[in-house]
Amino acid sequence: MSEHAFTPAERAAVYRAIAERRDMRHFAAGQVAPQVLARLLGAAHQAPSVGMMQPWRFIRIGKADLREAIATLVEDERQRTAEALGERRDQFMRLKVEGIRDCAELLVVALGDAREQHIFGRRTLPEMDLASVACAIQNLWLAARAEGLGMGWVSLFDPAALAALLGMPDGAKPVAVLCLGPVNEFYPEPMLEREGWAQARPLAELLFEDGWGAP
Amino acid sequence: MSEHAFTPAERAAVYRAIAERRDMRHFAAGQVAPQVLARLLGAAHQAPSVGMMQPWRFIRIGKADLREAIATLVEDERQRTAEALGERRDQFMRLKVEGIRDCAELLVVALGDAREQHIFGRRTLPEMDLASVACAIQNLWLAARAEGLGMGWVSLFDPAALAALLGMPDGAKPVAVLCLGPVNEFYPEPMLEREGWAQARPLAELLFEDGWGAP
Repeated sequence: MSEHAFTPAERAAVYRAIAERRDMRHFAAGQVAPQVLARLLGAAHQAPSVGMMQPWRFIRIGKADLREAIATLVEDERQRTAEALGERRDQFMRLKVEGIRDCAELLVVALGDAREQHIFGRRTLPEMDLASVACAIQNLWLAARAEGLGMGWVSLFDPAALAALLGMPDGAKPVAVLCLGPVNEFYPEPMLEREGWAQARPLAELLFEDGWGAP
Repeated sequence: MSEHAFTPAERAAVYRAIAERRDMRHFAAGQVAPQVLARLLGAAHQAPSVGMMQPWRFIRIGKADLREAIATLVEDERQRTAEALGERRDQFMRLKVEGIRDCAELLVVALGDAREQHIFGRRTLPEMDLASVACAIQNLWLAARAEGLGMGWVSLFDPAALAALLGMPDGAKPVAVLCLGPVNEFYPEPMLEREGWAQARPLAELLFEDGWGAP
């Protein structure tokens, strides 16, 4: 046991947040207190970032007409995705894939502009900026679970249309619409498994030793 | 306060892991017990994934010659990055950017092959698979911090060369070399700030309301 290890109770809390976090699409009435939202965004902002570039930008959506416009953009893409899915079209259309109109808080997360000036850790893998933003969102997600709040990451939208709607500069790109707020219950297991959309594979199938495909 | 909230002590533990996680490049002697490594990988595997596609693949590097070959690949890219940085070349070369030869455990994380069959949440944003892998790595990172273990995410490598070294199939792509293991101490603040590489920006500059640039 490392001298730097958290106490058993602390470790259990971290693992609990990881285990009980869910991608939520069902929300309940109620608000997110400003100081709670500030803690959650603070947690996101403590994420690792490649070369310390902090590529994340957060836009809190307060105006009702803007929330409605985002809901419409997402509905457009939901229809296009359904068509692209072919024989799974009807099954997809029966899923609840977002809670934009129902959640207490709506956030859009974007990659900032002028990212090309950051080379450290990105010369061969420029997409590491998105990896950093995803780490920030995962921090927010885990902190929200600890606060008893649900969150869902919606990626069903045309990024150019959403960027235009929110006045983003050239080079910036939205990557997440986050629905956040109180929920009546957390799904006991991932919703897409419950609904039969996909069967999760065990870790053992995805873990190899010293090379691909040798578990 | 939500009825689903963790206890104050549990919440504090989650925020502590988020606050004290560091991108480590300095490692100490010692091992990672197999059951601890299993817990960490289990935490990663509990990440959200777009459309439940679970795009993450983990390769544990056990062979010394393979570790050495990865260290060489990273050193090659470190030199190329230094050249690309121009006037910041010398400053970059003085930084310690990885601990591949020193860490107890070395893991390569990759995007799996055959990802194009997953359309849900990816029709307009195919890079959401990388976002899911990054969430898995962030889970692993936070769990490692709670266990008292350091981790560093190295993205200084040619992904095609690393894919070839590890026998990855067409379509798979390595996105992280993870150095994991005991450390003597965790950096009190991010190493790139301590070393003067970059000054972190406050959250307030990156947080807007109802549109870009309106904090």
